[in-house]
Amino acid sequence: MKKSKLTSPKGFKAAGINCGIKKNKKDLAIIFSESPCVSAGVFTNNRVKAAPVTYTQKILLNNKIQAVIINSGNANACTGKRGEKDVLTMAKNTANSFKINKSKIAVSSTGTIGKHLPINNIKKGIEVLSSKLSSDGFINAAQAIMTTDTIAKYISRKFKINNKTFTITAIAKGAGMICPNMATMLCFICTDLAISKPLLQKVLSTSVENSFNSITVDGCQSTNDMVLALANGKANNRLINSHNNIIQKEFDCITSFLSKMIVKDGEGVNKVVEIIVKGANTVKSAKTIAFSIANSNLLKSSFYGETLNWGRIMSAIGSTDINVKSDKIDLYLNNIQIVKNGSSCKFSLHKIQNILKKKEYKILINLKQGKNSKTVWTTDLSPEYVKINAS
Amino acid sequence: MKKSKLTSPKGFKAAGINCGIKKNKKDLAIIFSESPCVSAGVFTNNRVKAAPVTYTQKILLNNKIQAVIINSGNANACTGKRGEKDVLTMAKNTANSFKINKSKIAVSSTGTIGKHLPINNIKKGIEVLSSKLSSDGFINAAQAIMTTDTIAKYISRKFKINNKTFTITAIAKGAGMICPNMATMLCFICTDLAISKPLLQKVLSTSVENSFNSITVDGCQSTNDMVLALANGKANNRLINSHNNIIQKEFDCITSFLSKMIVKDGEGVNKVVEIIVKGANTVKSAKTIAFSIANSNLLKSSFYGETLNWGRIMSAIGSTDINVKSDKIDLYLNNIQIVKNGSSCKFSLHKIQNILKKKEYKILINLKQGKNSKTVWTTDLSPEYVKINAS
Repeated sequence: MKKSKLTSPKGFKAAGINCGIKKNKKDLAIIFSESPCVSAGVFTNNRVKAAPVTYTQKILLNNKIQAVIINSGNANACTGKRGEKDVLTMAKNTANSFKINKSKIAVSSTGTIGKHLPINNIKKGIEVLSSKLSSDGFINAAQAIMTTDTIAKYISRKFKINNKTFTITAIAKGAGMICPNMATMLCFICTDLAISKPLLQKVLSTSVENSFNSITVDGCQSTNDMVLALANGKANNRLINSHNNIIQKEFDCITSFLSKMIVKDGEGVNKVVEIIVKGANTVKSAKTIAFSIANSNLLKSSFYGETLNWGRIMSAIGSTDINVKSDKIDLYLNNIQIVKNGSSCKFSLHKIQNILKKKEYKILINLKQGKNSKTVWTTDLSPEYVKINAS
Repeated sequence: MKKSKLTSPKGFKAAGINCGIKKNKKDLAIIFSESPCVSAGVFTNNRVKAAPVTYTQKILLNNKIQAVIINSGNANACTGKRGEKDVLTMAKNTANSFKINKSKIAVSSTGTIGKHLPINNIKKGIEVLSSKLSSDGFINAAQAIMTTDTIAKYISRKFKINNKTFTITAIAKGAGMICPNMATMLCFICTDLAISKPLLQKVLSTSVENSFNSITVDGCQSTNDMVLALANGKANNRLINSHNNIIQKEFDCITSFLSKMIVKDGEGVNKVVEIIVKGANTVKSAKTIAFSIANSNLLKSSFYGETLNWGRIMSAIGSTDINVKSDKIDLYLNNIQIVKNGSSCKFSLHKIQNILKKKEYKILINLKQGKNSKTVWTTDLSPEYVKINAS
C-alpha cells in the first residue's frame, strides 16, 4: 500500500499535549476544522457506553462538527452523573477556547474505566491546546490518543476525482484491550471533500464493517469505541451525494491500514492470521463462523505454538448456530489444502510448518453451501498477553 | 458434599484396560448392565459431530441400552465414512463378546480429531474386556476414559425413597479442551432405579443445564461431548414416572460434583470463579451475561493475576445483545459490594485483595431488572494454559 507523507486536508489543524492525566506522556488532543464539517460516526455496540460516547452520538445527529476534543488515560466510563457533567465541561471549555458553538464539538475518551476525569487538568489543557493548533499537528494528536499502543497510528492519502485533488488524513489508537481497563479503539478521519452526510455515513459504515469490525485480538468489546469521519468541503468540489468508487476505496484503504496496525500492535501479539470463510449462505453466517475461529483460545494458542490443529478449526466451525455440513468443508493453509470434504488430505508437513513459522498467514475455509464470504483478522494468544493483562 | 465409597448399582459391572491406542495407559472401557436400561442422553450442540455421537444419538431414540463401549486417545471425529464404519465395528464386536443385541450398545470416543481409530487394537481389546468385567470395575473404567485429566473422576451415592435404597454411580472425564484436539467431556451415570424414559431424560437435562452446561474453561465446544444416564430398575421399586425431588437432587449433586472436578482439573487452572447473575428478565439473558463474563480473556487473565478489574466486568456485561441499564448494576466480590448503580463504591482494598488470593471466590452481579438468575463457573487464564495448548 502506498502511504503518502502525513499532510492535513485543507482547513484542518490538530494538536496534542500533556495535560497531566498521564505522567510525561501526551494525553489531550484536538482536531479542528476552519469550518463546520459534514460528519458521520460508528460507535461501540456495548450496552455499557462511556459518557462521551452517548454525548457524541447525540451531538452528531443534528449538528455539523467543527472540533473533536479527545483525552487518553481515562475512559470516563461507569462514572455516573459526574461523568456526564465532565463531558459537558470538556465541550464548553473547548467551545470557549476555540470560539465555536458548543453543539459543534465532539468529545471522546479512552483509558481506565470507573475513575472520574481530572477535569481541572483537562480545562487547563484545553487552553494550552488552542495555542498549539497547527496543520502539522496530526502526529502530535495521534500520540496524545495512545494508551498501551507502542506506536502512533496515522495515515494520509491524496486522491483525484475528475482531476481535482483531495486529501484524507486519519489517526487511530488501539492495542487490543490489552491493559487493565484500557480497552478502546478510536479513529478520526478528516477530509476536504464536499460530500453529503448520508453518503459519508454509508461510506464510513461500509469501511468499518470490513476493517475495525473485522479484527479481533481477544474478542472483548470496549465501552468507548468510536470512529468519526469529518468532511469540511474545503476542496470546493461539487457536492458528492451518490456512490463513488474512488471515495469508498480510499476509505477502505485508510481503515484497513489502520485496523491492521491495531492488530499488529496488540501487546503479546506475534502472529496475524487472516481467516477467510467462503461458500456461506449469507455474509452474516460467514462472519459468525469466521469469528468463532478467530476467537478460539485453543486455536490462538496453537498459532502461538506454530502447530497445526485443523480439528480445532473444524470444532470452531461447528460450534456456532449456523448449520454447516461437516462432510463438505474444505480447509486451506495459505495455498495448501489440508481438509477435503471434512476429512484430512495428504499434504507436506514440512511446507505447513514453514507457513506456521511466518508472522502472517491465511486460513481459508470453503463451506461449499452458498456464494458469500467474509474475511477477518486475528492474532495468536501468547503467555505475554496473559501476563500483561494479569498485572 | 458427602461422598460415599464407589459401589456399583445393582446389576451394573464395568471394566477398563489398555488396548494399545495409548502407550501404557488405559484407553478402553465398558459399562455393562445385566438387563437393558431405560436411557437418556445429552449430546454436544456442535454442528461438527463425531461419528460415535451421531450413532449413539440415533440408537438411544428407540432402544434400551445395555452396554456402553468407550475409547480414549482418539475422538473418531472428522473421519468420514471410515469413521462411521469403525463405530459399527465397535458396536458389533461388543455385541458378540457380551452376547447382547447390537442395538443395545452405545458407543463413545474421546481424543485426537481427524485420525482413524486403530480398529484392530480395539477389536482385540473388546475381547479382553469381557473377561475383566466386575462390579468393582467403575474406577478402572473412569481411568480408561481419561485424556489429559490428571485424576480419574467418579462418584457413587446411596439414597432412599420410601425406605427403599438406591445407588447411583457415575464416571466422567474432561479437562477443559486443553490438549491439542483433545476436547471432550464425557459422563456416564448408572442407577438401579426403575424410572420412565421421559422422566429420566428430564431429570438428566435439568441437571446437565446447571452443571456441565454451566462451566467453561475456554469457551470451546467439543465434537464429542456426551452424557448418558442408564437406569436398569434392579432395585425393583414401583416405576417412577413423575417429578421426584429426591431423584432430581441426587442427579444435581452427582453432575455438579463431577462438573466442578472437571473445571478444577483444567490444566493451567489456578482459580475457580463462580459467576452469579441475578435480577435478569429471563434465565436465558442471565446465562448470556454470565458466560460473557466467564469467557472474557481479559477478566480471566486478571483472575490469574489476582487483580480486580470491575471495569472489565461492566464491559463484558454490556457486550451481549441483552439490554441492560448500566446505571442500575450492582456488583459484589464474595460479600463485598464494589459497584452500586453502575459506579464504584467505597470498599476495603485489603479485603478485596485477600479474596482475590483465594483459590475459589464468587462474583455476583445484580441487574435489578427482573427475577431470574443463573450461576456459572469459570477459571483463570494462565500462561500455562497457552503453553500447554501451544505445544
